[in-house]
Amino acid sequence: MAKTNPGRFFEDYSVGDVIKHAVPRTVSGGERALYHALYPARHALYSSDEFARAVGLPKAPLDDLAAFHIVFGKTVPDVSLNAVANLGYAEGRWHLPVYEGDTLRSESEVIGVKQNSNGKSGVVYVRTRGLNQNDDVVMDYVRWVMVRKGNLDAPAPETVIPELSKVIDPADLVIPAGLDFSKYDFDLAGETHRWGDYEIGETIDHVDGVTVEEAEHMLATRLWQNTAKVHFDSTARPDGTRLIYGGHVISMARALSFNGLANAQMIVGLNGGAHANPCLSGTTIRAWSEVLDKAETSAPGVGAIRLRLVATSGGDAFALKGEDGKYKPEVLLDLDYWALMPV
Amino acid sequence: MAKTNPGRFFEDYSVGDVIKHAVPRTVSGGERALYHALYPARHALYSSDEFARAVGLPKAPLDDLAAFHIVFGKTVPDVSLNAVANLGYAEGRWHLPVYEGDTLRSESEVIGVKQNSNGKSGVVYVRTRGLNQNDDVVMDYVRWVMVRKGNLDAPAPETVIPELSKVIDPADLVIPAGLDFSKYDFDLAGETHRWGDYEIGETIDHVDGVTVEEAEHMLATRLWQNTAKVHFDSTARPDGTRLIYGGHVISMARALSFNGLANAQMIVGLNGGAHANPCLSGTTIRAWSEVLDKAETSAPGVGAIRLRLVATSGGDAFALKGEDGKYKPEVLLDLDYWALMPV
Amino acid sequence: MAKTNPGRFFEDYSVGDVIKHAVPRTVSGGERALYHALYPARHALYSSDEFARAVGLPKAPLDDLAAFHIVFGKTVPDVSLNAVANLGYAEGRWHLPVYEGDTLRSESEVIGVKQNSNGKSGVVYVRTRGLNQNDDVVMDYVRWVMVRKGNLDAPAPETVIPELSKVIDPADLVIPAGLDFSKYDFDLAGETHRWGDYEIGETIDHVDGVTVEEAEHMLATRLWQNTAKVHFDSTARPDGTRLIYGGHVISMARALSFNGLANAQMIVGLNGGAHANPCLSGTTIRAWSEVLDKAETSAPGVGAIRLRLVATSGGDAFALKGEDGKYKPEVLLDLDYWALMPV
Repeated sequence: MAKTNPGRFFEDYSVGDVIKHAVPRTVSGGERALYHALYPARHALYSSDEFARAVGLPKAPLDDLAAFHIVFGKTVPDVSLNAVANLGYAEGRWHLPVYEGDTLRSESEVIGVKQNSNGKSGVVYVRTRGLNQNDDVVMDYVRWVMVRKGNLDAPAPETVIPELSKVIDPADLVIPAGLDFSKYDFDLAGETHRWGDYEIGETIDHVDGVTVEEAEHMLATRLWQNTAKVHFDSTARPDGTRLIYGGHVISMARALSFNGLANAQMIVGLNGGAHANPCLSGTTIRAWSEVLDKAETSAPGVGAIRLRLVATSGGDAFALKGEDGKYKPEVLLDLDYWALMPV
Repeated sequence: MAKTNPGRFFEDYSVGDVIKHAVPRTVSGGERALYHALYPARHALYSSDEFARAVGLPKAPLDDLAAFHIVFGKTVPDVSLNAVANLGYAEGRWHLPVYEGDTLRSESEVIGVKQNSNGKSGVVYVRTRGLNQNDDVVMDYVRWVMVRKGNLDAPAPETVIPELSKVIDPADLVIPAGLDFSKYDFDLAGETHRWGDYEIGETIDHVDGVTVEEAEHMLATRLWQNTAKVHFDSTARPDGTRLIYGGHVISMARALSFNGLANAQMIVGLNGGAHANPCLSGTTIRAWSEVLDKAETSAPGVGAIRLRLVATSGGDAFALKGEDGKYKPEVLLDLDYWALMPV
Repeated sequence: MAKTNPGRFFEDYSVGDVIKHAVPRTVSGGERALYHALYPARHALYSSDEFARAVGLPKAPLDDLAAFHIVFGKTVPDVSLNAVANLGYAEGRWHLPVYEGDTLRSESEVIGVKQNSNGKSGVVYVRTRGLNQNDDVVMDYVRWVMVRKGNLDAPAPETVIPELSKVIDPADLVIPAGLDFSKYDFDLAGETHRWGDYEIGETIDHVDGVTVEEAEHMLATRLWQNTAKVHFDSTARPDGTRLIYGGHVISMARALSFNGLANAQMIVGLNGGAHANPCLSGTTIRAWSEVLDKAETSAPGVGAIRLRLVATSGGDAFALKGEDGKYKPEVLLDLDYWALMPV
């Protein structure tokens, strides 16, 4: 009996299955420091315990995207080891900030399957939940991937395609308990622009760029215990390159967006996202944002802002798709998320 | 008077000498996070405080190999600064898990010397002990190295070659106090294979590979405060390469072995090891294991498994030596250790 | 209204202005571990809580230079985003050790301005203070930079050049409360040379070298939340290189100086410093020191030593300037500081 994990193939997923993913992880100040070393992250709420306390939290949480990467990383051996493509995200919500000492684990429920017409692969939809040591959900999101069939003779399952919201209703966003931006310190946060200063449709070029090295994206991807071999093994792809984990691009772009969105502090919703083109070492990642929507919240001084975050490898800011409707080759990421800002 | 450390030469070692190595080190969650960033480490007992508590420990310890690297690193300025070759290890035992907040220091006793027939160098055997802040031994091991003579006219010492066990008797392995695998969670650990599922002689190809970068091995080697200049200084070797610390290869191979040996949780004995060929940046490290022996232990639900762990730079798995009896050129490491597994 | 930070130009600084810099930062064991991974740092007082306690401190502080980098990094968006050159440092003093859990922020007072005769730029002098969560000053220093004018028509301000000490009077150095080197353990510290063993004028070649990689200096510079784009963006400079943050060279040289100055434990004063030539990835950094002065202190067993620390990219040790009085091209750094040593 082979002892190594071959991963699951398309025919191994059935709607209703719940997969308990392996390797829980306790986070410490080490993960926080590494996040700041890997990305130019400067949002004050995640950098300073004092700033976090001044807005009603017990101390600075782990960056929301670090929590996402940890939850996501655990799903890779069960969900995407034999994946051909990561197709999309939806209905992602952060329910609880993650603090030093918390232990995270993940589980995924299969909520949809659809075999492709070629009979060689299919699309699998999972809803993944990240749980802490108290079995509280810290975040959940839907992801769908295209997975190869292992046995081409396996019968096609009944097609189930889940109904997914294109955008999370702002009323469904979870505001962390106690969050209060009414005494927010804009000097310490780094910018004066508040929620009211942003207009729907406004675009922001985040100006700065970071050239990515192999060592960096591998350190990051290992830290999230993501084992997909294309990120680590230069012999795994015909061209000898290592594909950079898409989440590395998300975190890099989000950190770059500080310059212009320093007060978009907490990420609370992930409406959708596409890894438009692969990113390789040596790329200089840049970012721009577009304000897609705004909403009030019930928390004192806290507004919600819906942002498109686009990472590029250069080219003109604000150019997303060509005349053919496809992403321009320099677009790496098109992410749609909700963040919380002082009003 | 020169202030810098010239290191010791062969004639500077006498049997019975005890060397107190410098620079004690307190470990924190930072070292744990870095270990997870540097290696694809996924053994649950070291990743999750909750998992560790569920098997009877107070929380997740620092990876056993990280403890080894810290203890080893301290010995380099006194033992191997003028070493020509690291010849072997024996009788390595982990006595106590190392936890966040522990402070480690090392001392070595010279237990053997043998001048080479060429009169220019000799072999030095030391037994190194890692101690914590309570002066408890956390691990000990024997290492022997070939060291240059500084003064070729120094007389040859009386030859003393210590008697060393080829294999640690499993009865002499130290099982951490309280360890209990009787309620071990195989789902969270990542694999279903238990001690009883492994047969002596069985071999496992760990499948995955990681291509190593200069920045990574230097970060690791500095973290262990190992100062050997061949690891850091591209001008120190005639070919301009930096030699990767052998311990980096050990940790990489051990982490890769998760895939097939996820339940070989704790390393408790180091029977021997050879750094068969040097490893350089750009190498894609792979690993395979062979089950050499199995033994019962007195701890509930805990079995001991003796494993050969081989790291390679490619080539066929399971090929160790050529017809000439020498290690094949693609073999980087041949390690023989005892680990603890749920029965 | 543009949301991104354009930085300040020369005409935006007025003597007496106090700038509160953004993004406070809480430090943890993660920052300490990363400092040890990024630099071959071995000074025992910063490596071991036990060693620190034995000399009268509550536990091991964050490396003094890490505290400096954090305080300095915060000033970059306000002081040096449009800087042409970092011209000098003076009157730097460390007032309080920084411990895990401390939160640092920075503020700078403009203490001098002088427009250049070309009318296109000017020199700005700031005194920067790093403050902790109790509003205590943890360090302060003066820095002066050449900054471009944004509006060439802006009138030249009245020239104010602050009077700065060339050397901090040793009586003004702040010795950490409780520091007592009378029971200092030289074995654990790594060298036997005490304050009394160093003579004014003595030079020390620190022997070792470290070849620097892009990933390393970017990890470090991000960790200090220094956002200057020349360090990260290979498209920002015409030659496609990334300039290594000068502080990375300072920390590398200081760590290398352990070999010969292992007992120069704490840095308490920064008299001056010049980044003599730029440092790029691939450089092998070496270091040498010169004893410039010595002074007694009031703390038991503690002496002060004034050191010149020179980092080079090779060449002869101890060669600083050419016959033209300019730094030799291989000199990267010329730093003048006070450290504390056991007498």
